[in-house]
Amino acid sequence: MLRTKAGIINVTGYIGAELARLLYQHPEVELSSVTGRSAAGQQLGDVFPHLGDMDFLITAELDKDVDIVFSAMPHGTSIEVVPRLLEQGVRVIDISADFRLKDVAEYPRWYDFAHPRPELLKDAVYGLPELHKSDITSASLVANPGCYSTAAILALAPAVKGGLIHPSIINDSKSGVSGAGRTLTLATHYCEANDNVWAYAIDGHRHLPEMEQELEMINPGLRLSITFVPHLVPMTRGILSSCYARLKKGKLAKGAKAREELQQLYRDFYRDAPFVRITKEPPETKHTWGNNLCSIYPTIDLRTENLIIISCIDNLVKGGAGQAVQNMNLMLNLPETTGLETLGIYP
Amino acid sequence: MLRTKAGIINVTGYIGAELARLLYQHPEVELSSVTGRSAAGQQLGDVFPHLGDMDFLITAELDKDVDIVFSAMPHGTSIEVVPRLLEQGVRVIDISADFRLKDVAEYPRWYDFAHPRPELLKDAVYGLPELHKSDITSASLVANPGCYSTAAILALAPAVKGGLIHPSIINDSKSGVSGAGRTLTLATHYCEANDNVWAYAIDGHRHLPEMEQELEMINPGLRLSITFVPHLVPMTRGILSSCYARLKKGKLAKGAKAREELQQLYRDFYRDAPFVRITKEPPETKHTWGNNLCSIYPTIDLRTENLIIISCIDNLVKGGAGQAVQNMNLMLNLPETTGLETLGIYP
Amino acid sequence: MLRTKAGIINVTGYIGAELARLLYQHPEVELSSVTGRSAAGQQLGDVFPHLGDMDFLITAELDKDVDIVFSAMPHGTSIEVVPRLLEQGVRVIDISADFRLKDVAEYPRWYDFAHPRPELLKDAVYGLPELHKSDITSASLVANPGCYSTAAILALAPAVKGGLIHPSIINDSKSGVSGAGRTLTLATHYCEANDNVWAYAIDGHRHLPEMEQELEMINPGLRLSITFVPHLVPMTRGILSSCYARLKKGKLAKGAKAREELQQLYRDFYRDAPFVRITKEPPETKHTWGNNLCSIYPTIDLRTENLIIISCIDNLVKGGAGQAVQNMNLMLNLPETTGLETLGIYP
Amino acid sequence: MLRTKAGIINVTGYIGAELARLLYQHPEVELSSVTGRSAAGQQLGDVFPHLGDMDFLITAELDKDVDIVFSAMPHGTSIEVVPRLLEQGVRVIDISADFRLKDVAEYPRWYDFAHPRPELLKDAVYGLPELHKSDITSASLVANPGCYSTAAILALAPAVKGGLIHPSIINDSKSGVSGAGRTLTLATHYCEANDNVWAYAIDGHRHLPEMEQELEMINPGLRLSITFVPHLVPMTRGILSSCYARLKKGKLAKGAKAREELQQLYRDFYRDAPFVRITKEPPETKHTWGNNLCSIYPTIDLRTENLIIISCIDNLVKGGAGQAVQNMNLMLNLPETTGLETLGIYP
Repeated sequence: MLRTKAGIINVTGYIGAELARLLYQHPEVELSSVTGRSAAGQQLGDVFPHLGDMDFLITAELDKDVDIVFSAMPHGTSIEVVPRLLEQGVRVIDISADFRLKDVAEYPRWYDFAHPRPELLKDAVYGLPELHKSDITSASLVANPGCYSTAAILALAPAVKGGLIHPSIINDSKSGVSGAGRTLTLATHYCEANDNVWAYAIDGHRHLPEMEQELEMINPGLRLSITFVPHLVPMTRGILSSCYARLKKGKLAKGAKAREELQQLYRDFYRDAPFVRITKEPPETKHTWGNNLCSIYPTIDLRTENLIIISCIDNLVKGGAGQAVQNMNLMLNLPETTGLETLGIYP
Repeated sequence: MLRTKAGIINVTGYIGAELARLLYQHPEVELSSVTGRSAAGQQLGDVFPHLGDMDFLITAELDKDVDIVFSAMPHGTSIEVVPRLLEQGVRVIDISADFRLKDVAEYPRWYDFAHPRPELLKDAVYGLPELHKSDITSASLVANPGCYSTAAILALAPAVKGGLIHPSIINDSKSGVSGAGRTLTLATHYCEANDNVWAYAIDGHRHLPEMEQELEMINPGLRLSITFVPHLVPMTRGILSSCYARLKKGKLAKGAKAREELQQLYRDFYRDAPFVRITKEPPETKHTWGNNLCSIYPTIDLRTENLIIISCIDNLVKGGAGQAVQNMNLMLNLPETTGLETLGIYP
Repeated sequence: MLRTKAGIINVTGYIGAELARLLYQHPEVELSSVTGRSAAGQQLGDVFPHLGDMDFLITAELDKDVDIVFSAMPHGTSIEVVPRLLEQGVRVIDISADFRLKDVAEYPRWYDFAHPRPELLKDAVYGLPELHKSDITSASLVANPGCYSTAAILALAPAVKGGLIHPSIINDSKSGVSGAGRTLTLATHYCEANDNVWAYAIDGHRHLPEMEQELEMINPGLRLSITFVPHLVPMTRGILSSCYARLKKGKLAKGAKAREELQQLYRDFYRDAPFVRITKEPPETKHTWGNNLCSIYPTIDLRTENLIIISCIDNLVKGGAGQAVQNMNLMLNLPETTGLETLGIYP
Repeated sequence: MLRTKAGIINVTGYIGAELARLLYQHPEVELSSVTGRSAAGQQLGDVFPHLGDMDFLITAELDKDVDIVFSAMPHGTSIEVVPRLLEQGVRVIDISADFRLKDVAEYPRWYDFAHPRPELLKDAVYGLPELHKSDITSASLVANPGCYSTAAILALAPAVKGGLIHPSIINDSKSGVSGAGRTLTLATHYCEANDNVWAYAIDGHRHLPEMEQELEMINPGLRLSITFVPHLVPMTRGILSSCYARLKKGKLAKGAKAREELQQLYRDFYRDAPFVRITKEPPETKHTWGNNLCSIYPTIDLRTENLIIISCIDNLVKGGAGQAVQNMNLMLNLPETTGLETLGIYP
């Protein structure tokens, strides 16, 4: 039987390289074509020596015979490429934000461009399999979530669904530097990022509207108010998302027993989610290094009756390329975990 | 004129070593005696090669003729040593928590011991010069604040004083590994801490009662409810403290103008504080590496009307040894900044 | 068909944990028993959360029915356990140095103990598959090489075999901190190792006799003189080994053409070695993160006519657990690469 | 008395910023003018927040009334600026390589440009105070050494002077990332440099001709052959230089006593060098973080009779800005250590 042929547009960023790694090792899909403007004509293994085993030419244009495409273009440029692919009957998993938001008015507000194809936003499925599995299965166009959004939505979804919390939420997130991409900036210069922590985009980060959109969809009628502050920390991979909200009275038992109920509620919510792990101890980003897990630790500050939820992912895997492959598996009716079973690398 | 003679008890930890560095370079004080049980009989420069210029023997006991002593003993053991020093007329700056809390009932709750000398808690002055300058000047016993507490209290004090916020506060703090001390633990093994972020002490960290005590003292009648979650991040030095609280209506102007008023309120509060810097951009821990500054960035999330305050310190300097020297300067009627003027090391 | 049952003695170190990770994912072998004195009775996934998927109890003693055992005991204690296993017909891959050296007199000199079972040293095979593939296939006892030795021997073997160099060799190696193990020491405390490089064991490191033994075995009659200086660098994984030796006259062409001949000689030597990659550019340790490759860059300093060889491995994989699994594959007549094909994790 | 007025050309790189830090804190010199093309018109404290205390405008051109200038221009452009300053009677310390090499033929070979003012090379003094103190004192133009060269020359000078070694020398150096400058490159992107070691410029690094020039000058008639391989390691500051050479027979005693003689020879050579410390244990880069020391550990591999010398510096201080200030002190007849006495920051 012929294997499905997959292509990657713009392989030269960190998500692109991670897609190449995962697809190369995927047992049911053949990576058949990769493009990268600046690197066209070069061997993939010369650009990324860790992929040295792959005898693969980077081209300027995709092969015509691909069945499914991962577009890792920057925000605002993916929209120029994706519609044509869809018209050709190619299914697309888009890594950019160009198809994540349902409300077309959010694009000029958060991304500084007017969306030229608003009708596509209705058809696109937000690619968080833990929330939209069946829609993804039949989708032509999947919008892969932002890395921060993945960690935050998975952390908060069960509490929001259960109506446990007041609508004012604090999300304090810590990301490794690869989240900022492979483009050269002063902030990602080693000497600036090493031994340093700082908060950025305090006035509003672009992943915020996704978080609100998806969490409000879980519990229609709810109007959330999320303060989201991302921080850059000196590590290559990983996001740790710390979420805080006030518990509503009467939803859980009193005292320590409430913690048990909370754990159970989270386990129930994610019963069918193979990549979510509810932990009994606070998780560490290092535990998910290189794999597709999201570890979530829900607990309660008994002194203040605040809900605290800590979640961890590898921003390039569950927060990017791994989630995209998980979406592809669903689209191809493969087991969700195919090619994603590898354990994390520790230490 | 004879210079004041200073002693250090337990020089072998990171705060002890930092005290030695600062006091050795201090123009008005003579470091005359250092003790360290495990290292007694060794040269200071052999234990700490960066202090190699200092020809100094570590002894088992303090010299009798010291005028002022820094006790860097662990919690619960400083209390065994300090009273005798006070009786001998020696002034003491205690680095441990043994004299920080005014309410004796907090010791068994947070530190697992009953305080044997509650009467000393009344006399001890909480050594945060920005709040207690005049009391420190005349104190015999100064309790040097915890590192997290320093960053959090300085971040929140003006807002609490001004009655700007509701009493429910989130403090999400990120600390470098030296905050955990020089003792060997698995969590501070390089391979465990590198490329990793995690939250710990979620059920209640020992620096929390100091924060509440001091902030409530600023605005008597107020009863705060602080959720404090410390995180360990892979860097050697530095604390970044992110504070979140709901603004009270009507205290500040509407919209962007509120941010200006807030900046002004913070600048006014710290007008006479030479080590506090109110910044116009979010600060980075790296900017205070090796010096005694606390950088504070107060702002407002206009979408949610939450106050956000980010503060940064070097946990071993303003969060430890530097603040202790600042306290000493006040106690000796020296200019507050003596010996602490050096700029941070960057990058 | 029943899968081969493998056991791990002392799973709680970094090599032990890495063995568990690799064997759990191995398609042809069943990890059936793991021991760990300090952690007996605990679940493997509680001790190592990155192995959280593995439902596995750590026991005090090995199961009786294991077919092959990896002993990750410390030097000098493995020798107490291994002979009994061999008598029971269990094949053993020993991670310690207890069976690496052929000359029994080297044990008191380098390891401070007299070897109690010298007759086993003859039977044991030095487990570097690139040199001893056929002997490993039939061995009962394989002595897995040291991490530094692996990088150095693979770097130098072709040049030594080809008689290209004078016998005086400099090996300046740089290792990540995991090479020092999971035991707590001041040198591996995060704050001591971070932002720091130092040379250690300058008077003679224990991996030196292995290097000389194996390289002299390749070219009998040769008597090498290796100066080996290991350095600790602030990263978790990886060894980069820089080797220097004077070229013999007349062995290679003059000028730049000599470099080509050298590359070809290295490619030829490792033609059948699936885990050795001869590179055209200097390799980086990051390119082998988490996988079993050894990247080697041989070149010539044309100004001085010195041979320079740079090799890179992941010290816990090709320098430890991965190489042990490679040895196991050979012992079980499986393809050498089974379970070891995964690409490195980058960045 | 009026203080000497110092200027900095091109303050926006790491050496420039470090010069600003050191000169601002210098008790005998007034930093009066700083330029920086890209940042002209900005406040120094806005570009470099760790210098936030300095109320200082970056300008496009130097003030006319400066007495001494530090030129931190790139190689090949400093030569366009420095001659005019000299004609105006301004003394210059040049950070670039434009005046380091005595042999004008070396410029096209190593730096790809023909030197337009070869007559200035004779007058320029190579600014390594430990070798050229009296010449520096009276110089108009001092060429500040390269960072690698400083560590290597100081490590080798006593052995070369004493005729202890054969002329073939290996220098394997490890540098922190700040040595590559503040310019944005893929190699200095955090995600590429973190957790990584690699060797670069293996075919010949530009600091090599300085090393040979200066070491041959110490022992005229000697013709050295140095293989120099620099490595990038994941830390912000620091160079560790490991030097290897064969000892000549009969120069030192036999056995362990030779080590003592060697130590004594090094101590004698650097008797009057306040910033060189001969250590009894291998030094660590961290011990010199932020200060102007060079720690040197000379020893002998008794097995192979190779000399091993390990030296450590902070590449931005003794390897750059600190050494430049040391040169300035000599030029101004100030004590050599003025403004440079601060201890290193550890951990």
